[in-house]
Amino acid sequence: MKDQNFFRLIKKDKDTYARLGELFFLNNGNSFVVKTPIFMPVGTRGSVKAIWQDQLEEMGYKLILGNTYHLYLRPGEDIKHFGGLKQFISWNYAILTDSGGFQVYSLSKIREFHKDGIIFQSYLDGSKHFFTPEKVIDFQLILNSDIMMVLDDCPPANSDINRIEESLYRTHKWAERSKNHYEELKTKKNYSNRILGIVQGGIYEEKRMESLSFIESLDFDGIAVGGLSVGEKKEDFYRIIEFIGPKINENKVHYLMGVGNIKDLLYAIKYGFDIFDCVLPTRNARHGHAYTSNGKLNIKNAKYKLDNLPLDPECKCKVCRRYSRGYIRHLYLMQELLAFELLTYHNLYFYYHFFELIQKAIEKDEYNFFFKNWINLDW
Amino acid sequence: MKDQNFFRLIKKDKDTYARLGELFFLNNGNSFVVKTPIFMPVGTRGSVKAIWQDQLEEMGYKLILGNTYHLYLRPGEDIKHFGGLKQFISWNYAILTDSGGFQVYSLSKIREFHKDGIIFQSYLDGSKHFFTPEKVIDFQLILNSDIMMVLDDCPPANSDINRIEESLYRTHKWAERSKNHYEELKTKKNYSNRILGIVQGGIYEEKRMESLSFIESLDFDGIAVGGLSVGEKKEDFYRIIEFIGPKINENKVHYLMGVGNIKDLLYAIKYGFDIFDCVLPTRNARHGHAYTSNGKLNIKNAKYKLDNLPLDPECKCKVCRRYSRGYIRHLYLMQELLAFELLTYHNLYFYYHFFELIQKAIEKDEYNFFFKNWINLDW
Repeated sequence: MKDQNFFRLIKKDKDTYARLGELFFLNNGNSFVVKTPIFMPVGTRGSVKAIWQDQLEEMGYKLILGNTYHLYLRPGEDIKHFGGLKQFISWNYAILTDSGGFQVYSLSKIREFHKDGIIFQSYLDGSKHFFTPEKVIDFQLILNSDIMMVLDDCPPANSDINRIEESLYRTHKWAERSKNHYEELKTKKNYSNRILGIVQGGIYEEKRMESLSFIESLDFDGIAVGGLSVGEKKEDFYRIIEFIGPKINENKVHYLMGVGNIKDLLYAIKYGFDIFDCVLPTRNARHGHAYTSNGKLNIKNAKYKLDNLPLDPECKCKVCRRYSRGYIRHLYLMQELLAFELLTYHNLYFYYHFFELIQKAIEKDEYNFFFKNWINLDW
Repeated sequence: MKDQNFFRLIKKDKDTYARLGELFFLNNGNSFVVKTPIFMPVGTRGSVKAIWQDQLEEMGYKLILGNTYHLYLRPGEDIKHFGGLKQFISWNYAILTDSGGFQVYSLSKIREFHKDGIIFQSYLDGSKHFFTPEKVIDFQLILNSDIMMVLDDCPPANSDINRIEESLYRTHKWAERSKNHYEELKTKKNYSNRILGIVQGGIYEEKRMESLSFIESLDFDGIAVGGLSVGEKKEDFYRIIEFIGPKINENKVHYLMGVGNIKDLLYAIKYGFDIFDCVLPTRNARHGHAYTSNGKLNIKNAKYKLDNLPLDPECKCKVCRRYSRGYIRHLYLMQELLAFELLTYHNLYFYYHFFELIQKAIEKDEYNFFFKNWINLDW
């Protein structure tokens, strides 16, 4: 069973659905493990914004995300020349790439469905492109991502049931085509990339269940849940998480796509999700927000003007060991690049450390306490 | 003699006026030495743009420059609360601050001379300010710079002799007032900051000589030459460097202000200058230019699109050991912050290493060969 080689469930929390697991990767002959739950920093165009790959490594990150939509537009197939995305960006560990579908919907003004895929206009130069399930897999094979995602139809959060049914029809058909396409390629070439299916269904429990059943029937290397945190009401988000999380095959890795708000993460982990990606820690850094053991902090606030404390006195990161809030505030107000660099580093360190604490809590069957301790801070 | 404690001339090159020297600093009880010739990265508003203080340290830099004009406007006297500029920005080594005069001329639209100083408008919010020689020393004492510069009148390069004579009159008067003011303060407080005088005189040799004689008579801790590389013809620049450099008291450190073009540095060192500052390596980085052992490289050039080589195959910096031209070009075209970070790091590493090579060449009496080897590359 190949799946056993990719994800191993280590233990389940006594009181919740939270799980401790391991993902196995093989990279140029070196094998390494990524413990779950884990957060993946987002490296949109081949760079986690403002951060060196060296710095991600020193924090402990071994799995990051790249956006197929962006990389497909620039630099595109040139990446083949470098031997893949990891070689191109000089990243020694693992990369998950999304299918690009979400960005087509959110960034391209003109897009239309076609029976075989989506036609869209580049947000960069208006040029027309066509994504099919097969093409998206082919491009992710050029990137040589460790984890590839299938093309799906991710409708807006406020979609009615008809639009959701349409999205399931398309998402399922494309998932099947993606899987078949990749299986066929594998018979010719010795690919070892992992491929994950995506569950859609909006805020409708029965549609989520229908989608989960279908996607699970295709035996992907893991199950992703998409179409959440795209503008729906918080109570709907939590309801769906709580409904679908515990129903996913426990021997596969569970990926909740695009979710990274601390509160949402705490919920999702409680209901059995393992891996996450989100631009929040990096984007918020560039907006002057720091994550701390006491909640979120807005460095622009005048009260930090003369503050000699680090962003988070409990944090042991390179930024907090050296730089004060007062200094970082000054840099931020002056829009010095160093402000973005320091805040990004600190936030990514915070997320990494936060997930280490989560792992420890699950290990000790204390996730419920952990959840209650953190959920009410000001995120 | 206090000056012997600040600068020590180690040796002179056999064939040129190039010198090897040492600057001594005492910082919170720790003493350290900076070998000269040396380049000072420019940390305009308390940050060498795009670079962490940690990274400057790891490259070997122990002396950086801060701009009094910028720091006076923001964050201003708040720095007092942190205990000085070094504490504010968390820098463990030495800082030289300029007097702010040059920025008043180059950045403030409205400025007028007054018998006691210069009135100018902030480039940030249009507020009115008044710099006097005394005030500028007082602010640099708040910054607690290791090396303070006196307020001078730095006229445009194309000024006629009348304007130059006016500038000498003002520059000399203000130099005297600065020195007297600081000496007076020192009788009350135990300051150990160093203070440098500035020689003006435009492109007129006799005016340069007159200014040098006067400034030297005030017994500053070192002699700076200002008002060069401000738009004059290259032949005038070289003529003045060649004329004035060898005439400066050899027991004082010689600072050529604001000069950082590689060709100009090679000339200035040949004629006895020891310390330099310039935004070129950092600003050019943000414009996509990398300094290499083969001259300057423009990363935007299409020929680097598929180039797997590092910026400079002979360079041993962290950037060149890991990232390719093709990748950095992609980052630059996408205006990813990492592009600015990597190029800035590389360029500052290049400058540091270049000055190490210069020091070695002088040590071996080979500066003339070194000069000829490097001067004709494409800078």
